[in-house]
Amino acid sequence: MIENNQARWLWYPGDFEIRQGLLQNFSREERGYDWPAYWNMDDCHRNVKFKRYYELSEETSFIVYVTGIGYAELNGKKYSLGKEITYQPGKNKIRVFIGNTEGLPAVFIEGEIIKSDLGWVASNFIDESPAGWSSLYLTKDHDPNRVYYECKVVSAVSQVERQGGVLIDYGRAIFGTLAINKLAVNEPVTICYGESESEALDIEMCYYKENQATSKTVPRKRAFRYLFIPNVTSEQVSIDAIHEYLPLQNKATFHSNDELLNKIWSISVETFTLCSGLFFIDGIKRDRWIWSGDAYQSYFINQYLFFDEEINTRTMLALRGQNEMKQHMNTIVDYSILWVIAIENHYMMSGDKTFLKQIYPKMQSMMSYLEAQTNQLGFIYGRKKDWLFIDWSEMDREGTLAAEQILLLKAYQTMQHCADILGEENGYTEKYEQLKENVMTYFWDNDKQAFIDSYESGNRNVTRHANIFAILFDLVDQEKKEQILENVLLNDEITEITTPYFKFFEQDALCKMGQTNQVYQIMCDYWGGMVEKNAVTFWEEYIPEEKGDAIYEMYGDPFGKSLCHAWGASPIYLLGRYFAGIKPTSPGYQTFAVEPKLDTFTTLDVQFPIKNGLVKIKKEETQLIVSATKAGGILKFDGKEYPLEVAKECVVMLEPETI
Amino acid sequence: MIENNQARWLWYPGDFEIRQGLLQNFSREERGYDWPAYWNMDDCHRNVKFKRYYELSEETSFIVYVTGIGYAELNGKKYSLGKEITYQPGKNKIRVFIGNTEGLPAVFIEGEIIKSDLGWVASNFIDESPAGWSSLYLTKDHDPNRVYYECKVVSAVSQVERQGGVLIDYGRAIFGTLAINKLAVNEPVTICYGESESEALDIEMCYYKENQATSKTVPRKRAFRYLFIPNVTSEQVSIDAIHEYLPLQNKATFHSNDELLNKIWSISVETFTLCSGLFFIDGIKRDRWIWSGDAYQSYFINQYLFFDEEINTRTMLALRGQNEMKQHMNTIVDYSILWVIAIENHYMMSGDKTFLKQIYPKMQSMMSYLEAQTNQLGFIYGRKKDWLFIDWSEMDREGTLAAEQILLLKAYQTMQHCADILGEENGYTEKYEQLKENVMTYFWDNDKQAFIDSYESGNRNVTRHANIFAILFDLVDQEKKEQILENVLLNDEITEITTPYFKFFEQDALCKMGQTNQVYQIMCDYWGGMVEKNAVTFWEEYIPEEKGDAIYEMYGDPFGKSLCHAWGASPIYLLGRYFAGIKPTSPGYQTFAVEPKLDTFTTLDVQFPIKNGLVKIKKEETQLIVSATKAGGILKFDGKEYPLEVAKECVVMLEPETI
Repeated sequence: MIENNQARWLWYPGDFEIRQGLLQNFSREERGYDWPAYWNMDDCHRNVKFKRYYELSEETSFIVYVTGIGYAELNGKKYSLGKEITYQPGKNKIRVFIGNTEGLPAVFIEGEIIKSDLGWVASNFIDESPAGWSSLYLTKDHDPNRVYYECKVVSAVSQVERQGGVLIDYGRAIFGTLAINKLAVNEPVTICYGESESEALDIEMCYYKENQATSKTVPRKRAFRYLFIPNVTSEQVSIDAIHEYLPLQNKATFHSNDELLNKIWSISVETFTLCSGLFFIDGIKRDRWIWSGDAYQSYFINQYLFFDEEINTRTMLALRGQNEMKQHMNTIVDYSILWVIAIENHYMMSGDKTFLKQIYPKMQSMMSYLEAQTNQLGFIYGRKKDWLFIDWSEMDREGTLAAEQILLLKAYQTMQHCADILGEENGYTEKYEQLKENVMTYFWDNDKQAFIDSYESGNRNVTRHANIFAILFDLVDQEKKEQILENVLLNDEITEITTPYFKFFEQDALCKMGQTNQVYQIMCDYWGGMVEKNAVTFWEEYIPEEKGDAIYEMYGDPFGKSLCHAWGASPIYLLGRYFAGIKPTSPGYQTFAVEPKLDTFTTLDVQFPIKNGLVKIKKEETQLIVSATKAGGILKFDGKEYPLEVAKECVVMLEPETI
Repeated sequence: MIENNQARWLWYPGDFEIRQGLLQNFSREERGYDWPAYWNMDDCHRNVKFKRYYELSEETSFIVYVTGIGYAELNGKKYSLGKEITYQPGKNKIRVFIGNTEGLPAVFIEGEIIKSDLGWVASNFIDESPAGWSSLYLTKDHDPNRVYYECKVVSAVSQVERQGGVLIDYGRAIFGTLAINKLAVNEPVTICYGESESEALDIEMCYYKENQATSKTVPRKRAFRYLFIPNVTSEQVSIDAIHEYLPLQNKATFHSNDELLNKIWSISVETFTLCSGLFFIDGIKRDRWIWSGDAYQSYFINQYLFFDEEINTRTMLALRGQNEMKQHMNTIVDYSILWVIAIENHYMMSGDKTFLKQIYPKMQSMMSYLEAQTNQLGFIYGRKKDWLFIDWSEMDREGTLAAEQILLLKAYQTMQHCADILGEENGYTEKYEQLKENVMTYFWDNDKQAFIDSYESGNRNVTRHANIFAILFDLVDQEKKEQILENVLLNDEITEITTPYFKFFEQDALCKMGQTNQVYQIMCDYWGGMVEKNAVTFWEEYIPEEKGDAIYEMYGDPFGKSLCHAWGASPIYLLGRYFAGIKPTSPGYQTFAVEPKLDTFTTLDVQFPIKNGLVKIKKEETQLIVSATKAGGILKFDGKEYPLEVAKECVVMLEPETI
């Protein structure tokens, strides 16, 4: 818990995240070149000012430090930085002006009373807002232009001679650099990296290589498990891996009678931990970019593992960039909309009205940007260079698309909800109602009892995507949801979802419709398949039919597939949200429900985080034991409701048939 | 002349200027602290791409260099930077992707055929435009993130012991650093700078000080003529000044029988040269910022001295920033409007349609921003935090103001003209007509035969500002101009213009109304007054009544006045535009007029630049000799017109009464 009067680095709200997001999205590397993100990237402001009024009855002093250049001002008089300034009793106005042409302008004020704690206002010379800060930057020596990773030395678990060189296996995925302890050779060597053994051994095609390495080389941060050094012997080489990470607290535990599920859980945790740093990135080898669609799913996984609100907000702020909307997030229209929708979920998870208030103007400008590309029916369409992604799958893409409209509907609902919380006037309900009517008229097919992709083509083709979103976002009534379940989700004639990205939504919808048993089977098959192939982290995609090195191929690149990809960790969410059945029923888990669906487990002992608390669930042969460290919970089980008292176990005896 | 196929550094158009403008506006220093500009500053893009198609029948190769990180792409295949890439015959698409988190992303391509010459398209991932470049960056080793100043070593003209220390006078204004040749003291010293002797000798209040200087110190770039080092003797010290500058070609000469005017001319040239670098700045000591109002006047002075089109365009691009309008230029509404108006003049001067085409979208967005703050009468008003500057003078500032409307009228006219040149559809004529009608109805006072400041207050107060603009921009007919001249400009009861900024406009208007004799007298008095006080450059302001060190005071600061201020050089413009009488009558001086008004000179021998040429005027006892190095000129003199043939002297015999 950070006290309000604790000094900290302050910046214009969003600037730290935007700046670091830029650096993140420029960190991708491939085969000897850098690959900065291919969309328009914002940077932090170059000049900002900070302001605060004090009214004190005693003299006091303070010192202003900044990243960049500038000056401090006390009642209109300017002072140099880094020197003690004396404050005379009375009402005083303090301002700090900062310019920084190469990084984040930030301020740290040291003083007994006057300091850079909560209460400062930041301005970009246009708008004023409460200053931004992060729990990662609470001391003067922690420059918010640097990221202070912790390091862990990982020694090789095996080092063998292969193909005339040395193959090193660290036994786990590393995201970091190397400490070359010994390299007893006369000539510089090439170090080949691999997420897989095959990749490391492929001197030509491996993703990363350190050329001309000597014992003094400290390579850049990379993702790998294996190294291969050609033309050396094992005695000549000793290299440790230095894994770099931001410490995250894993608040969940999962132990069940099912060893495969236990393994899926722990590999999911490993995968998600690796992909969670300052931001949620898609994968550690590739792309290392912040994608709004991937991040959307990570917010949900995070809720059931770290419950780290700051990664969510950092990611949301980085994705959104500065005030002016110039382009869709990652160029993708649906990613923009998902960004809006995610904020409502974040509010339900965190109850954080301060963040909601900060981000709301940027939600509004995003909505204006979206609404500017709707037609007379209220349907959103793509502009030139917009990418209507939805999914890689084939679908009828003529004219306006059902899936986009359903997302937009949910966005209107989100805006209405957020505006209500903040007491902001808005007209989103009407927009929602009008769009909903048109969506049902044009996209709902009464015969097929499902949403069609497009009405303009006349094909009346049905794919899963829009239908899944409609269930997830409760945009149709229970009867229609059941129709969708039967006619689409459980209908083998409807083209299968093949991408793990959309599988997340599909499994979410299936669970929501009570199909946990089926989802359990999918976990065993799909994730279990990767476990069987000795995965130490979950992959970007798994196709059971692929054999040999073909499993590493993607996008036409023999090692293009990311073997540690955030969305691979979705079992964490599915297990927490549906199997354990925990969800907030009011913002910040003031009230929450625990509705376990544990038929697939004989015994189970799990714990999941909630806001400022934990829920524990234990299933034994004959009883279910549920407890929460915080008030407001209700256990729903077998048609009955049991209020959960703080830190008191609620025990329900299990009848054989409910197991 | 730069050949189209000469390789050069390329960037997203405007980015170099915006980046360097940021650095310029952050370079201000005062009494030990930095003073970055206090308005919202844009920076260059962080990631850009460049594209070009080639269709060649032979194999060729090229190497791509960038400032930043990224890769080159040939027909979809990615390549590392700095390595030779082979192009196979046929149609090829080449792209270069660059990211730069700390500076300008730019590209230089070396090759026999494929190179970074004219023809590349730059994209910010939203818009595509022809790539930007500058004649200052034509070789690979000239990084466009650096400015390559030339240096001139200036030795002291005097070094004397004063107040227990040493006072050094370099005899001229320096904008640069120091070479400390000798500093034979045991302790570090303080070096005090001064534009004036008094400033340098004031150890407490001088603007710049180098504290703790040793013989190894290389101070930052500063403006000064004098140095004072306390507590040393003359033998202990030897310091050269290192003047830094971008070479500019002074294309004008001025010699007359009038020694004072000759001196005013040469000091004006010195002043203006010092304030002209990458951009037109207001002054070299203070503010070192790019102010749109100051720059507006500099464009006009430039036209008659350097005729350097690139400083104009660099300044205009830096002022305007990126596409999105967020704030008025320097926060001042009238400065935004002057920026628009200046572009028409730049086009008339240069005939540069390429630049006009580049800047036109930014003119349009500026106009939209302005129009969004007009009322139902079309009158522009100030928004919160907008500064309706016009001038420091007192005027009736209630409600909408005449001067702003007259500027807006001219801006509509400019837009109409520019749109016509580019063949762009627009509705500016109607807006102009409508606004004009309302301006005449509400702001023109038929009794006073002048524009009043404000109609909403009911005071019907007349100041000079709106009336001057109306003459300058030909927004009233000749009859009304004459009325204004009589009732306002030549009316001592109307509050005098006291700022040199607005004096520029006033003298411009007086000259335009034929009052060159009066303006001649003003030059002798005002500028002559500074000459008498031994000015080596012209000052920000000159008040004849001020005596002693009071002349250095401004804004409540004893040495706040800038003693080298661009607008001080306005005699160059007045002499060239009205006394020599040279002006383009069609874009780029395809046709031009020479209409000398030289009554105040007995003899005179001058030369002024025009686009791709020079005009020479010689006045002798009995004849006027005019010639031009380029066709299209007409000499207008004494009611007659004489076509000027290329490089042929046109001689007009002077009747006694015309002298």
